[in-house]
Amino acid sequence: MTDLHDLTRRLQKSNDSRIVLLVADGLGGLPLEPGGKTELETARTPHLDALAARGSLGLSIPVLPGITPGSGPGHLGLFGYDPLRYQIGRGVLEGLGIDFDLGPDDVAIRGNFCTLDESGNIADRRAGRISTEIARPLCEKLDQIEIPGVEVFVRCVKEYRLVVVFRAPDLGGEVDDTDPQRTGVPPLDPHPRDDASKRTAEVAAEFLRQARERLAEDAPANFLTMRGIAKRPAIPTCEEVYGLRSAAIAVYPMYRGLARLVGMDVLDAGQTLDDQCARLKAAWNDHDFFFMHFKYTDSTGEDGNFEKKVQKIEEVDAALPQITNLNPTVLIVTGDHSTPAKMRSHSWHPVPTLLAAENCRFDRVDAFGEAQCKTGSLGRFEAKYLMSLALAHAGRLEKFGA
Amino acid sequence: MTDLHDLTRRLQKSNDSRIVLLVADGLGGLPLEPGGKTELETARTPHLDALAARGSLGLSIPVLPGITPGSGPGHLGLFGYDPLRYQIGRGVLEGLGIDFDLGPDDVAIRGNFCTLDESGNIADRRAGRISTEIARPLCEKLDQIEIPGVEVFVRCVKEYRLVVVFRAPDLGGEVDDTDPQRTGVPPLDPHPRDDASKRTAEVAAEFLRQARERLAEDAPANFLTMRGIAKRPAIPTCEEVYGLRSAAIAVYPMYRGLARLVGMDVLDAGQTLDDQCARLKAAWNDHDFFFMHFKYTDSTGEDGNFEKKVQKIEEVDAALPQITNLNPTVLIVTGDHSTPAKMRSHSWHPVPTLLAAENCRFDRVDAFGEAQCKTGSLGRFEAKYLMSLALAHAGRLEKFGA
Repeated sequence: MTDLHDLTRRLQKSNDSRIVLLVADGLGGLPLEPGGKTELETARTPHLDALAARGSLGLSIPVLPGITPGSGPGHLGLFGYDPLRYQIGRGVLEGLGIDFDLGPDDVAIRGNFCTLDESGNIADRRAGRISTEIARPLCEKLDQIEIPGVEVFVRCVKEYRLVVVFRAPDLGGEVDDTDPQRTGVPPLDPHPRDDASKRTAEVAAEFLRQARERLAEDAPANFLTMRGIAKRPAIPTCEEVYGLRSAAIAVYPMYRGLARLVGMDVLDAGQTLDDQCARLKAAWNDHDFFFMHFKYTDSTGEDGNFEKKVQKIEEVDAALPQITNLNPTVLIVTGDHSTPAKMRSHSWHPVPTLLAAENCRFDRVDAFGEAQCKTGSLGRFEAKYLMSLALAHAGRLEKFGA
Repeated sequence: MTDLHDLTRRLQKSNDSRIVLLVADGLGGLPLEPGGKTELETARTPHLDALAARGSLGLSIPVLPGITPGSGPGHLGLFGYDPLRYQIGRGVLEGLGIDFDLGPDDVAIRGNFCTLDESGNIADRRAGRISTEIARPLCEKLDQIEIPGVEVFVRCVKEYRLVVVFRAPDLGGEVDDTDPQRTGVPPLDPHPRDDASKRTAEVAAEFLRQARERLAEDAPANFLTMRGIAKRPAIPTCEEVYGLRSAAIAVYPMYRGLARLVGMDVLDAGQTLDDQCARLKAAWNDHDFFFMHFKYTDSTGEDGNFEKKVQKIEEVDAALPQITNLNPTVLIVTGDHSTPAKMRSHSWHPVPTLLAAENCRFDRVDAFGEAQCKTGSLGRFEAKYLMSLALAHAGRLEKFGA
């Protein structure tokens, strides 16, 4: 079975085009009432509307109809990687989320400090939700643990949450959680699900043995449980599958990490959209592809704040000229999923997508909204096809067959 | 490769939502002339139109573009089962069509009474289309046949058509038809296509040997041929893949049988739409998902009676308040395929679909018709995705990935 990357590997060609993928996280929305407008339709977006007039619109399906993605599958799809084929474990995502540079030999684990009672049963699965200040020295203590043949890293995330990484060749990533998901029972031993992960389970058991000793006097955080034990999936790089020197300009670590996973260079993004646009301009000559990530359309949606999400979309619109002034060959504005303020959560609804390029089949519309996207020239497509559309519009794909 | 059911198994969650799938069989249609209206567009449907205003519309593709489905694949698709993966043999469909409760050890066969001449060649492949009254005692006679180690069931269908079922462990379902499809030649012997079906072929041969003796004096129905020898495919239940306690409210046996195949509880449906609605109301607290089937939009289409099909659609519309009054979380109105009166047959045309729920991306339309569905928010989707959309709108799916 030929997959899309087999095709793009074979057909890719180089030119001096520039592609910008601007992801307004959780962009898609819902009207609050029948007959109403979505957040994007409500927002006053003169620049996006002008861009829509010289672009093609469509709706992207992040995974499959009805499936709501997390940030991981949402972004992998936009980067052209089938999110059902490349699944990212919880531990790996946590590692990415604190900017830990996970390599192919790493097993990443989400840890939770917990409280053990005198008989060794879990009394509190979150160690009384200790503060980050209390957790940090404990993480530093655990980071000192030594296991022969294995590099051990322990990093604080926030409050009772930490990341543990084991680095060694040939460690499998298929080990069950040790969190029993309830109190009054002891933590579980790490149990391997395949032969390749037996050594991982042994390493985890040894780590936990030493951790129990070192944390003995640190109640309420006198132990930890492990969840989402996972390896970074083997993912081909953007350079290999698309021939693109790619860069990520993202403020939040999780999105930098996802970009690093597919081989993008992660640039210093500053803190604001203006910082990001300045970075884009500065890096313009050094890369072919730029992924820019804007978080606040999602977080305002998660908060259920329709008005604030509208305002954040308008901020994206206001920054747009800084991007269009660079004359990208292809400029895409989309989201990794919908986050309707009405639902206060990610959702499955297809995501408004705008692709502007010289060789678009223009849509004769004067606005960028779900209604226009529904009947747009890009149609409704699985997000994983966005990159082949971008490459095509950038003139970076040869003809298939003679 | 992860398929949709792998996802729904993993992501399913429980709540107290109610989903109603109302299937107006063969709902999709065609205008009689260019510029004209379809049956659905012609019908006066105030309740469906009001529902459309607070729902999302779309067009479902029963199997693949251009492929016209029978009732089996049409319904399996709506139930979320890939109709190309789960194929139902003719014998099994015939068994379902007479309410025979086929189990996993059963091989079902569609039989045709035929007439043999004195030299044993087929003189009439349908035994002069004998009446059901004549066929019934012959079927009862064949039902007495005994084969060691095998339970044998013979049931009358209609006129010259009957169903034969062999029940025993380890009977394969891969045996060729014995109907040579022409007269003047003898019936074929049952021929197995794989090793697992050798015993089935032997059982069939023994059955036919005894049948020939028992029917010797019953010309014109002095023998039978066998077609569509098949086992029930192994299909996971709705409860397993969706976490839904499901019920079918269908008047016709075939549709009850298809529902039973995917593990639905088959409720007494009475004879009319009003009976079905009353049953729905009575069963409301005992199930999460209700499949209601209305046959007459299809049969009037098959008759080529445009006006009558319009009238049947209006009957569905008139019954709709009995359903909406129950406040289902998700209400879907669609068909298993199109049956345009103009064609007097099933067709491949995508099927108008209306899904109404709180978290719809509303379509700002005031009618339910093919034209509105063409640009609706659900887009054009393979029917097998209808169930994931239903589950999503019912809040019954967790997020995929973190």
